[in-house]
Amino acid sequence: MNIILLSGGSGKRLWPLSNDIRSKQFIQIFKNANGAYESMVQRMYRQIKKADRNARVTVATSKIQVSELKNQLGDNVGISVEPSRRDTFPAIALAGAYLNEVQHVDRDEVVIVCPVDPYVDDDYFEALKQLAAIVEKGQANLTLLGMEPTNPSEKFGYIIPTSSAPVSPVSSFREKPKAELAAEYIKQGALWNMGVFAFRLGYLLDRAHELINFEDYDDLFVNYANAQKTSFDYAVVENEKSIQVLRFSGRWDDLGTWESLTNAMSEKTIGKVISKDCENTRIINELDIPVLALGVNNILFAASSDGILVSSVERSNEIKPIVEQIETNEIRYAEKSWGEYQVIDMTPDSLTVSMLLKAGKRMSYHSHLRRDEVWTIVSGSGTAIVDGMSQHVHAGDVISIAAGCRHTLIAQEDLKVIEVQLGREINVSDKQKFDYE
Amino acid sequence: MNIILLSGGSGKRLWPLSNDIRSKQFIQIFKNANGAYESMVQRMYRQIKKADRNARVTVATSKIQVSELKNQLGDNVGISVEPSRRDTFPAIALAGAYLNEVQHVDRDEVVIVCPVDPYVDDDYFEALKQLAAIVEKGQANLTLLGMEPTNPSEKFGYIIPTSSAPVSPVSSFREKPKAELAAEYIKQGALWNMGVFAFRLGYLLDRAHELINFEDYDDLFVNYANAQKTSFDYAVVENEKSIQVLRFSGRWDDLGTWESLTNAMSEKTIGKVISKDCENTRIINELDIPVLALGVNNILFAASSDGILVSSVERSNEIKPIVEQIETNEIRYAEKSWGEYQVIDMTPDSLTVSMLLKAGKRMSYHSHLRRDEVWTIVSGSGTAIVDGMSQHVHAGDVISIAAGCRHTLIAQEDLKVIEVQLGREINVSDKQKFDYE
Repeated sequence: MNIILLSGGSGKRLWPLSNDIRSKQFIQIFKNANGAYESMVQRMYRQIKKADRNARVTVATSKIQVSELKNQLGDNVGISVEPSRRDTFPAIALAGAYLNEVQHVDRDEVVIVCPVDPYVDDDYFEALKQLAAIVEKGQANLTLLGMEPTNPSEKFGYIIPTSSAPVSPVSSFREKPKAELAAEYIKQGALWNMGVFAFRLGYLLDRAHELINFEDYDDLFVNYANAQKTSFDYAVVENEKSIQVLRFSGRWDDLGTWESLTNAMSEKTIGKVISKDCENTRIINELDIPVLALGVNNILFAASSDGILVSSVERSNEIKPIVEQIETNEIRYAEKSWGEYQVIDMTPDSLTVSMLLKAGKRMSYHSHLRRDEVWTIVSGSGTAIVDGMSQHVHAGDVISIAAGCRHTLIAQEDLKVIEVQLGREINVSDKQKFDYE
Repeated sequence: MNIILLSGGSGKRLWPLSNDIRSKQFIQIFKNANGAYESMVQRMYRQIKKADRNARVTVATSKIQVSELKNQLGDNVGISVEPSRRDTFPAIALAGAYLNEVQHVDRDEVVIVCPVDPYVDDDYFEALKQLAAIVEKGQANLTLLGMEPTNPSEKFGYIIPTSSAPVSPVSSFREKPKAELAAEYIKQGALWNMGVFAFRLGYLLDRAHELINFEDYDDLFVNYANAQKTSFDYAVVENEKSIQVLRFSGRWDDLGTWESLTNAMSEKTIGKVISKDCENTRIINELDIPVLALGVNNILFAASSDGILVSSVERSNEIKPIVEQIETNEIRYAEKSWGEYQVIDMTPDSLTVSMLLKAGKRMSYHSHLRRDEVWTIVSGSGTAIVDGMSQHVHAGDVISIAAGCRHTLIAQEDLKVIEVQLGREINVSDKQKFDYE
């Protein structure tokens, strides 16, 4: 089974746990069977592998999420990086070309596209396996998963099947309707469109070449910005006559609001929290200082290095426009492909960062034009390279890097470093990368 | 006018803003006329100086508060340091000897002792001036300030005056009574004991020599631990026949609870806070990340580098036993006589600190046995001395200090330094001080 996970979105609806680089799907608040916290993307990846250990998972995403994906999923997951955001059709087309040309997946193989961020149980993945089996039968060009509606929601598109059989041809689609109309569709047996599409890879590649002018994967990648911005629904689904839909009635939650997200938590508090006599209250504390909550009711509390939210449960879905007023251009915490960094001190002319470089990882060989850096190795060991000179480093070593010097670190053991950046214009974009053999 | 301010107490009732070194009186949450936030001790010192610009203020306190007092009041305030805690009589006796011998205050001069931490208005200081005038008249050995009771409180001792005149001889004292008895006293015209005592310095010195065996200030200081632990009320007031009391009916608040403290704030929020549709809610944020509060009612929220409190107003007086469960031996933020420091990163084998050394200030010349230190100068300029070698330092300089090396920093301009401490047993007590000329 080949699965393309569409990982998009960034935003402030779940501030301070989500921000411009950490989307909802990367927040680690779900406790797994081992007692570790996992994010939605980790949870889904684990669930896929449980359903089909040979499943080939490819995440279609933007550049900004690559480091975080590698940090959370490791290096084995395939990543199809969208050079720019062109909506779902070009993204899926690019991932299809990537599968075919980079991963050498045959045109006859089944591919299932699904969003990375619904909160689902194992039966969802059983349904994906059923979808693959249906595609194998070849009775339709395109097979969808349709959710049995629980209410006349205005949030979803509706699929109208020709019958109430578990697998049915689709007669038509309806865009997000008003509630009365939705109720009408539901009477007719309509299903919610879950954004899950299954097909043979060749079908996708044919549609891609019909609608986008490109030679091959590399060509599509380089000229990606020229592809028309359009959704897979609009470009493919609405023009396809041969579509089937598989009914689904298991758990399928969006968890796009603080309330729904925290309701899915198995505990009422996460992190260093002492909570006493608090009702209908969820507390997530990512800071390393303790939170004491006493006698508060109906509260959502979340603290990260970006800020602290304390909101009534009812009002927590209204934070987005307020958060947008907060001036926080700087990201204080980020997961990187090599580990993580945390800004721990800021002045107008300096930035102090605590970095953890994981054993065996290395950062890029790079330089900065407008800042000096001082590294103090706090623990672990590895190799520092500065302007081509390589030296073994361990706890207590200090490395000064003047502006313009090329430098990198390679961790032998987990390497913890305090980095002081000094300069008048400290900016993440002040970075030149170089090859180093 | 000589004023001895008794500055005691430390504790967790106002956690996370108070801790073992920062008592209630040092929390800066009262906005003054210039728009700056001041603490109770700063507010009281300013009010005293406004009432009598020539007032000589001496703070009687323990060693642990000296740095913070100097940081908040500057170097001009007199400080009588209690070598150990022996209750108020030895503390006042020591301060009296300090005034007489170190500050050369004559035995005939009036001294007024008062606690540092009531929240009062200017009329309180007018009453202190009246007290001084009453002492000058010489009609009694001891003059007290008595608060007109507003309720039969069980929290206070009661003073029974012989008349209802503004100034009256005292007939007797009553220890903290039950409410019914208190109501009885109040009918008899009793006043609350405010812990304010006025007398001529000679009177205090005579009592001190009667009750404690010491030669002079130095002798009392060195042998302080031998003085019997006893209160001024018990040792002096209860044995004195010649006492007058001045009635007072102005503002006199303890502000010892979160609720009373925050009610005295002129604003509902302090620090980086966005608050929307919050009722009966006070938010104090000392962190440099923003707090967003939305639609919460009846909440006290306080965040410092020690932790975060979110409590219902009603329950906020119950936090102390809960806070005592929190394992936080380390103090993360402290005001020092030379500036301030903030712990910004901790690992088992390291501690990273952001230090601000104020212009003109210096730290002690000292060494550590069990840790190395690395200083990165982030801004400002000054002089670093390491093992007797002096060097000018400015932004970008890095100084490595091996365990055992004697070192100090002297700030020419405000000097901001990132200090990485490295060692297996990092502890504030690992410090040897040396003279350096």
